[in-house]
Amino acid sequence: MPDALFDRVAIIGIGLIGSSLARVLRRDNPQTRIVACARRAETLAAVERLGIADEVTDDPAAAVERADLVVIATPLSAYAEIGRRIAPSLQDGAIVTDVGSVKGAAIAALHAVLPDRAHFVPGHPVAGTEHSGPEAGFAEMFRDRWCILTPLPETAPDAVAKVAALWEMAGMRVATMAPDHHDKVLAVTSHLPHLIAYTIVGTATQLGEDLQSEVVAYSAGGFRDFTRIAASDPIMWRDVFLTNREAVLELLQRFSEDLTALQRAIRRGDGEILHDWFTRTRAIRRSIIEAKQA
Amino acid sequence: MPDALFDRVAIIGIGLIGSSLARVLRRDNPQTRIVACARRAETLAAVERLGIADEVTDDPAAAVERADLVVIATPLSAYAEIGRRIAPSLQDGAIVTDVGSVKGAAIAALHAVLPDRAHFVPGHPVAGTEHSGPEAGFAEMFRDRWCILTPLPETAPDAVAKVAALWEMAGMRVATMAPDHHDKVLAVTSHLPHLIAYTIVGTATQLGEDLQSEVVAYSAGGFRDFTRIAASDPIMWRDVFLTNREAVLELLQRFSEDLTALQRAIRRGDGEILHDWFTRTRAIRRSIIEAKQA
Repeated sequence: MPDALFDRVAIIGIGLIGSSLARVLRRDNPQTRIVACARRAETLAAVERLGIADEVTDDPAAAVERADLVVIATPLSAYAEIGRRIAPSLQDGAIVTDVGSVKGAAIAALHAVLPDRAHFVPGHPVAGTEHSGPEAGFAEMFRDRWCILTPLPETAPDAVAKVAALWEMAGMRVATMAPDHHDKVLAVTSHLPHLIAYTIVGTATQLGEDLQSEVVAYSAGGFRDFTRIAASDPIMWRDVFLTNREAVLELLQRFSEDLTALQRAIRRGDGEILHDWFTRTRAIRRSIIEAKQA
Repeated sequence: MPDALFDRVAIIGIGLIGSSLARVLRRDNPQTRIVACARRAETLAAVERLGIADEVTDDPAAAVERADLVVIATPLSAYAEIGRRIAPSLQDGAIVTDVGSVKGAAIAALHAVLPDRAHFVPGHPVAGTEHSGPEAGFAEMFRDRWCILTPLPETAPDAVAKVAALWEMAGMRVATMAPDHHDKVLAVTSHLPHLIAYTIVGTATQLGEDLQSEVVAYSAGGFRDFTRIAASDPIMWRDVFLTNREAVLELLQRFSEDLTALQRAIRRGDGEILHDWFTRTRAIRRSIIEAKQA
């Protein structure tokens, strides 16, 4: 059996992402000891039932004791409090990483409170489903997806390499970029799409009772795909929009301008503008298929 | 072998939907003679290569001769011209149906020009993929989806029943409703989602070269699903928006108001509004899963 990457891994927040990572560790590094930490007793009970951790606790400080890797996988709004609570218990040389969708906010919440004796490697595995909780996780979720690490100038390269090795073990491709660049890219590829999906599904649910059962029945015409995205975890996504506010609002402005232009073309019956636009958007789909991200 | 539903079926426009229906007929009613009509020689060559028709022609009038069923499956903008051309060649008692996404427009284009000796049954199989052309079709595409028929008060019930039987053979559930109600329901479940997807993918493609390759690489975070929808046939969708203008513009107005409300909540940092909204949208997903349309 090859050496495990880590001896003792503390996973703080054991939902979809955290539990999927625990399953990867169980599969590929079975000798690694996994400590799962969650606030709610029913989450910890589910983790025990699933057998994806060796120890469970609701105390982040206790969870990180003697851990050589700490993975923070809670919603972003919990980061500052968790950082404050785990800081005194981190062992010398412990690596702390996270999986949050907004790296500027993750760094703002954790960087100042974590002690110098620990190595903080901000990270974001770009993978997931619309389901939440430890039952929803699965080891293959990360396969062939990208993980973005946004190390700080002072982050030790060895620590970055070990976190990269962890996600590569999970099947991911790993890229490194500046935190603010990450937040701009993800605003396009993830945050705006979620906001739009949440909006349109909300619009449709307010159309009155009689129309609503028909909206459900005939959802296969396109609406269905939006409902999948709009079923994602409400707390996680509230935090994303509150913490990546500037990038999301800037993009939203562009989106609204474009939507108004198409609305105007529809009202004026200008088919050429519509046709040209719809032809251009078709091309980007081909790029995604070629990049094997379809 | 059971009797075939029809002896001779003319399919005018043999793209994704038309070719999928041809495959259903081949599979379930192999004794039915299929005539495929398309404007372009390469489409007809593809149909011959695929072996999904017994005869091919680029002349709609020739295609419908002696046919007991005519299926119009072109973009909506071609309907009026096709109706005018096939009218003199339709045999007594022929059933004419269509598969267009906007029933008001389909009826407006065809009802007046089709002769009384033919039975017009407007229809809309709510199924499809983002791919186009006869190669993209497959018989199973219709399975467990809904087909909506919008017969006129004077449409013969027997003709409606035969068209319903055709789509049921394809595996569809068949519903009947008024044309304008159909157009309102589909504006929600299909037309607005497509317009929004086209918009957001267009917005993302205008962000500059350097960001664009990253948008493709990290599209798995949600954007990917929109690109699939925004890869749908540009001509078909141009016609949908031009012909279902009132219903789409009315909904777009509601959508924009809702988006502005969420934008305001993000700008003001009002997490409660976001969380409440995102929780409500999660519920409709469950309804769709329960309705087996997920």
